[in-house]
Amino acid sequence: MKPNFSLRLRLFNLNFWGIPYLSKHRADRIKRLGDFLNVESFDLVLLEEVWSEQDFQYLRQKLSPTYPAAHYFRSGVIGSGLCVFSKHPIQELTQHVYSLNGYPYMIHHGDWFCGKAVGLLVLHLSGLVLNTYVTHLHAEYNRQKDIYLAHRVAQAWELAQFIHHTSKNADVVLLCGDLNMHPEDLGCCLLKEWTGLRDAYLETRDFKGCEEGNTMVPQNCYVTQQELEPFPFGIRIDYVLYKTISGFYMSCKTLETTTGHDPHRGTPLSDHEALMATLYVRHSAPQQNPSPIHRPAERSLLISVLREAWTELGLGMAQARWWATFSGYVIGLGLLLLALLCILAAGGGAWEAAILLWTPSVGLVLGGGAVYLFHMQEAKGLYRAQAELQHVLGRAREAQDLGLEPQPAPLLGQQEGDRAEEQ
Amino acid sequence: MKPNFSLRLRLFNLNFWGIPYLSKHRADRIKRLGDFLNVESFDLVLLEEVWSEQDFQYLRQKLSPTYPAAHYFRSGVIGSGLCVFSKHPIQELTQHVYSLNGYPYMIHHGDWFCGKAVGLLVLHLSGLVLNTYVTHLHAEYNRQKDIYLAHRVAQAWELAQFIHHTSKNADVVLLCGDLNMHPEDLGCCLLKEWTGLRDAYLETRDFKGCEEGNTMVPQNCYVTQQELEPFPFGIRIDYVLYKTISGFYMSCKTLETTTGHDPHRGTPLSDHEALMATLYVRHSAPQQNPSPIHRPAERSLLISVLREAWTELGLGMAQARWWATFSGYVIGLGLLLLALLCILAAGGGAWEAAILLWTPSVGLVLGGGAVYLFHMQEAKGLYRAQAELQHVLGRAREAQDLGLEPQPAPLLGQQEGDRAEEQ
Repeated sequence: MKPNFSLRLRLFNLNFWGIPYLSKHRADRIKRLGDFLNVESFDLVLLEEVWSEQDFQYLRQKLSPTYPAAHYFRSGVIGSGLCVFSKHPIQELTQHVYSLNGYPYMIHHGDWFCGKAVGLLVLHLSGLVLNTYVTHLHAEYNRQKDIYLAHRVAQAWELAQFIHHTSKNADVVLLCGDLNMHPEDLGCCLLKEWTGLRDAYLETRDFKGCEEGNTMVPQNCYVTQQELEPFPFGIRIDYVLYKTISGFYMSCKTLETTTGHDPHRGTPLSDHEALMATLYVRHSAPQQNPSPIHRPAERSLLISVLREAWTELGLGMAQARWWATFSGYVIGLGLLLLALLCILAAGGGAWEAAILLWTPSVGLVLGGGAVYLFHMQEAKGLYRAQAELQHVLGRAREAQDLGLEPQPAPLLGQQEGDRAEEQ
Repeated sequence: MKPNFSLRLRLFNLNFWGIPYLSKHRADRIKRLGDFLNVESFDLVLLEEVWSEQDFQYLRQKLSPTYPAAHYFRSGVIGSGLCVFSKHPIQELTQHVYSLNGYPYMIHHGDWFCGKAVGLLVLHLSGLVLNTYVTHLHAEYNRQKDIYLAHRVAQAWELAQFIHHTSKNADVVLLCGDLNMHPEDLGCCLLKEWTGLRDAYLETRDFKGCEEGNTMVPQNCYVTQQELEPFPFGIRIDYVLYKTISGFYMSCKTLETTTGHDPHRGTPLSDHEALMATLYVRHSAPQQNPSPIHRPAERSLLISVLREAWTELGLGMAQARWWATFSGYVIGLGLLLLALLCILAAGGGAWEAAILLWTPSVGLVLGGGAVYLFHMQEAKGLYRAQAELQHVLGRAREAQDLGLEPQPAPLLGQQEGDRAEEQ
């Protein structure tokens, strides 16, 4: 590696809004997207909401001369909607599907059927190991009464843990995607505080695009204006986040968003705005290397975010258990009705009533049973995330008691007295 | 670290067979297990099939003086059944739930409800990073006609990938658990070939216990003798596997199994035999370090195992798609019946027939719908694993074309010409 080593990376991220039969002008948009990506020749293209595998195959074929490597992350009933195109060979890839992702009976929202996930691809560039993650979290349908908040916080925690545990020998970590969270939202803070990832919009020296870096804006003709009413300038829910592990320094030279039109001023490529970032990786001067020990304000922010997430997951668990109990009563009611019907039928009376009530009774038992099982599994999933947070908080408290700095897990253990058996 | 550094680790692994109301003498067995573990004072205790969280809490309380750290891995409707007790502080922990784990309608087998998973705990001992994994894969109910084979192979692949991606900065990797696979089974070979994990039973210098290292033996009074009929000496499905990443050498000094009785010759602790291993980690002499480049026979074994797994997943996918198509026809039939009933009812005739057939028609549509969704998701999960295998095989072929050695992913990329943008 040369002493004046510098690696330039150009990224493109877009939530493509590719719902077959529902998303407007899908065929035209994907054609224009392919043309644009071929002309621009980014290093990495990360897409979300490419729900149809045919769309991915179309892009793969169209982009193969410029982006020889591509992958579609499959999961759930419909898929994760995630795919990547790379100019460089993909050395390794894997994915993690989130344990919690909404409710199957919220069919009109549909997230549960998608198998939301995080995809990982490992690239080796100029001797550097580059872990790139692409993800799409559960949508927010009602900010005032967000019934999916606990699930999104749990997803953010799983995402943070997945990045934390799979990037330990990476030199560079990149995360792109639609987090469906505003920058100040709990899940977003949890993710950034736990992984140490930095927000390209806040770090860049040169930003061009929508006001406040927003990625869903009222100027976009595909956006439902009503949904953005409380936010006249739009919202920022798509991100490019990055960090280097050690010995390197990463900077975002430019960050650009589309502005409600396609990059050539036509109709937009999607209802979301695309993000285009130019990042540089360089050897770090000592003062540029982020300190492994957080400053006191940062430390207390981490602890407070962990605590807040713990509480939110607890509220979600209480709700899940309430639903499990409620559906338990529904099953009981269904069984009672069935028993009554059997008695009526055995007595030879009210045959018609028995036949009429047969379907709703069986429906109550089976429906209640399915809802019960679902919410039991939901409670277990939330409890799992809460227990992991509890463990991290416990380690932080132990470190504090020993007079050490509470810090993210990668560093927690290193300052603990290891009680090993050495013989 | 001293030059004559040596770390001794004593492990205990047991599939506890702790099904509430069904497993015999559960309360007595867990009491005796707790007493035994307290007396023996292992470094790490890894248990599977602790299905009741109350049992875990009982053990946690009983073992807390000897094993201050403990964790229960929660997932699915019932749980993963996995838990750990450690004499040393657990620095970090997380888990991965397998995407595929049997069929919800196979209620009598029940695996689907369990949320089978792999748990990871990171320990720091004498300056070494020790990643310990505990897992339990889908059971094998019929070896001659194993309908869960593709799921178990997919689980083995997910397990191997999880270990591969999360252990990159670990010095020592341990995997304990009930793999529900015989040593020569495809999934077992895939796991060992891809991760490089070595089998303590094959490596140990001193083995005591059941013939051929078996962990389910006919001498055990809780074992259904009929199931073991084709295997007069029993089967080996529980494992201690290990590896060191670099600079260290690990050896298994002793491995012991119980022999159908508890260690003090009473009734057994479970229907499985416990595994007790004493492992040593030392600085490696150069000749002791496993070569990063596999020998030709090993290389071709890896490629052939990857290919075989790819084929098996393909067969599973075909089966899943067949079921999805079949359930599609069932939905169609249900809709047809419903339409006919509506016509009959509207015509004012055959009311009784319409009412009687209402339930089965709705049942066909809803049941068929659920089965369709399940198998679509199954096909996606198998395709996902197959695509990952395909990618690894593709990398291996590229390496071969370039005259390089085909080798597991950790090494594949290092020998590839990185085409990076350096400016």
